[in-house]
Amino acid sequence: MSSKPSIPKGTRDFSTEEMLKREYIFENIKKVFKLYGYQPIETPAMENLTTLLGKYGDEGDKLLFRILNSGDFLSSLSNDDMAILEYGKLSSKICEKGLRYDLTVPFARYVVQHRDEIVFPFKRYQIQPVWRADRPQKGRYREFFQCDVDVIGSDSILNELELIQIIDQVFESLKVGAQIKINNRKVLAGIAEFAGVPERITDITVALDKFEKIGWDKVKEELYGKGINNKSIKDIESIINVIRLTDAEKLIFLRRILLDFPIGLEGIKELEELFHLLEKVHINSSIVFDLTLARGLNYYTGAIIEVKSTDINIGSICGGGRYDNLTGIFGLPGVSGVGVSFGADRIYDVMDQLNLFEKSNSSSTEVLLLNFGEAETEYGLKVLRILRNMNIRAELYPDQISLKKQMSYANSKKIPFILMAGENEINNNCIKVKNMSSGEQKVISMKELKKFVENEIRQTKGIDSLPPNLKIL
Amino acid sequence: MSSKPSIPKGTRDFSTEEMLKREYIFENIKKVFKLYGYQPIETPAMENLTTLLGKYGDEGDKLLFRILNSGDFLSSLSNDDMAILEYGKLSSKICEKGLRYDLTVPFARYVVQHRDEIVFPFKRYQIQPVWRADRPQKGRYREFFQCDVDVIGSDSILNELELIQIIDQVFESLKVGAQIKINNRKVLAGIAEFAGVPERITDITVALDKFEKIGWDKVKEELYGKGINNKSIKDIESIINVIRLTDAEKLIFLRRILLDFPIGLEGIKELEELFHLLEKVHINSSIVFDLTLARGLNYYTGAIIEVKSTDINIGSICGGGRYDNLTGIFGLPGVSGVGVSFGADRIYDVMDQLNLFEKSNSSSTEVLLLNFGEAETEYGLKVLRILRNMNIRAELYPDQISLKKQMSYANSKKIPFILMAGENEINNNCIKVKNMSSGEQKVISMKELKKFVENEIRQTKGIDSLPPNLKIL
Repeated sequence: MSSKPSIPKGTRDFSTEEMLKREYIFENIKKVFKLYGYQPIETPAMENLTTLLGKYGDEGDKLLFRILNSGDFLSSLSNDDMAILEYGKLSSKICEKGLRYDLTVPFARYVVQHRDEIVFPFKRYQIQPVWRADRPQKGRYREFFQCDVDVIGSDSILNELELIQIIDQVFESLKVGAQIKINNRKVLAGIAEFAGVPERITDITVALDKFEKIGWDKVKEELYGKGINNKSIKDIESIINVIRLTDAEKLIFLRRILLDFPIGLEGIKELEELFHLLEKVHINSSIVFDLTLARGLNYYTGAIIEVKSTDINIGSICGGGRYDNLTGIFGLPGVSGVGVSFGADRIYDVMDQLNLFEKSNSSSTEVLLLNFGEAETEYGLKVLRILRNMNIRAELYPDQISLKKQMSYANSKKIPFILMAGENEINNNCIKVKNMSSGEQKVISMKELKKFVENEIRQTKGIDSLPPNLKIL
Repeated sequence: MSSKPSIPKGTRDFSTEEMLKREYIFENIKKVFKLYGYQPIETPAMENLTTLLGKYGDEGDKLLFRILNSGDFLSSLSNDDMAILEYGKLSSKICEKGLRYDLTVPFARYVVQHRDEIVFPFKRYQIQPVWRADRPQKGRYREFFQCDVDVIGSDSILNELELIQIIDQVFESLKVGAQIKINNRKVLAGIAEFAGVPERITDITVALDKFEKIGWDKVKEELYGKGINNKSIKDIESIINVIRLTDAEKLIFLRRILLDFPIGLEGIKELEELFHLLEKVHINSSIVFDLTLARGLNYYTGAIIEVKSTDINIGSICGGGRYDNLTGIFGLPGVSGVGVSFGADRIYDVMDQLNLFEKSNSSSTEVLLLNFGEAETEYGLKVLRILRNMNIRAELYPDQISLKKQMSYANSKKIPFILMAGENEINNNCIKVKNMSSGEQKVISMKELKKFVENEIRQTKGIDSLPPNLKIL
């Protein structure tokens, strides 16, 4: 016998139990997205490498999964290519396509490609897997799901407000405690100007982003290592110190400090407007203005948003921001967008650790008809039909094996009700029902079946059963 | 400006309108799967090539999308490999992973890998995209979705019955007219034995499978071309002639003809049992016993099932069968399974051509709050919150632009109701509502909002809005 088959490292199978939990997360997220008027789109798993390359930095390019050209992929190679045999150069000759790395770049590509059909502001959500050739480790996978929600074609701060409302409502519906951190890239640019090194904004934000993890001393070291002078580092430090102030005090302090730096002031103004609007709506999550929040990605140009669980230390469970130039790389400049991405896999881990999934999620079938033979089964099939017409999930044990084994199947699948039809039941047009948790058994007539469904099956189950008249779409 | 970006040929973006239609199909299919006690699993997009290769024939191996190994993929090559530079051999050295080609082989791999956690009979469904490097053409894509439903670990014909009930109920719920064709591989094997060429079963089934498309004369030519002698071809012809008989007559005829061929008789017995059971349940679709149905795939060992639309000539919209040995290739012999796969993309095309999607599917947002400025928006945000708490999909126009442009946005998105808040409305704690189809406008108080939602918004929309108390899972 051959050894057990396996799957590529960093990928996962999802069992039924995991699927039901995951669907619970996705459905809650989708429901909130829809409540705010966002609509779904999907893009292909494969994109042309020309679309993907250069969008995620050098590191990102290396982490792209490339798809070998079909057929004789060597035919596109010249003798020179063969002679060099350098894998980086060769891979771009023998691969034209790659797996998507995130949902943001495909979305930007989508907007540019379909701009004539799109109504702006375009509010879309997208829930699909992405693939990264990262080193797999606990909580980091090579295939994982992102749930992105973006609005493109509007620079109103009301969009940032709405996204924060969405974040708040998603985590409230999932009962996950959330802390929402907010910053603004323009304020970071203002700080770089204040420190006299505006051109070093990327190095500064990359270093600041690690503040929470490694502390100010290490951030200082990194800045110094990047060749930023002591005076500038002192200037930055004088601002970062404000983390001890309240959010309102921080804004007042920064407005004074950044008085001569228009870009920084603009960032302050945007933050003030956002905080003002946030006071007008009801938000459950705690909100923090975090000056060190940068989220490495260089394409953010305004608001930066990041969410952490208040209970489990697992890193960011949602994040995003405003980008003014994303579609510019595909030839459509001047379109501002803002969006956030929910990390379904980390949210799953948080909920699993906090036992936030209901037990009942693990069951699905509500009624099992035992198999006592041909005539009994033919009779039972009619009962199953009636139950399914009432939207009860019902199955029939397919093989005529021992009662014990059939009962053990019902127990393993946590099926709450068992149906049995014998000669008596067939002759009297009724069915025997056993409640698996109470052990109670009774014989009911076909006429009583509807009442039984309403009063017992529907009361027992914890999981969904759509009422028969409810349209799915 | 650079040229418009594009996506790889044979792949597709799905717009919101297409997504809503597709979700309608998937939700209907899922709902029926669940009603019969099937539960969801998912497997990764990438499988090890050792799992995929050799399972789909030589042609299938060529159509697999292979993923280039990350990092220096050349380092795994020996000097000999370099010298040969033959693409077929090279590709297996530089690629360890491939994209899944169907859902059946990953399912077999899943069952073997997780056999200790699985309760048998294992009833699972799986709805995911698959990828094939086929030549793209109308109705054939390189990325497309399969909806598979299988039961593994039971050889009862009740499973075949159940799958046909599922097929029937899915197409009934989608209002797609369906013809279900049924055959049995054992009967085909019996015919090959009857014709004296049992070892030519594959050639015979491949040729017979084309009967409907190309007619008997061409099938005969193909058989002859494959080296099957005239006498055998005549024997096969004498059986294929029965297509003019009724299903019941066919079975009687075959039982006589195949009397000396146990494998063929076993197939007849299975079909008789299935047709007997089918009479006991209610099936809307027409059912045909089609002796020429073979469905190329060699792994079928018993029942073969295929579904066509009765209205649109588009090929198979669902198909499957019983396989006794599928998990054997992964080291778990003796487990019988049966399943069918719904082709979501073709079902979509059929429904689209027959106008079976409701118009209302194309809208999503139910209420738009117009943007008249800061104070009005802050007031309006409270109204939106109340509406969303009642599960009404509500959005706010984010930018304070001309009324005309905002109304045009509402029209483009087919939003049925417009909300407006001016000074009067704010002072009197009410809101102005416009019904976009009737043109009717009225001012309602916050107290009347609930009644308005119940009597007007909920009546107008054709698409889903889950009642607030309905759990998603």
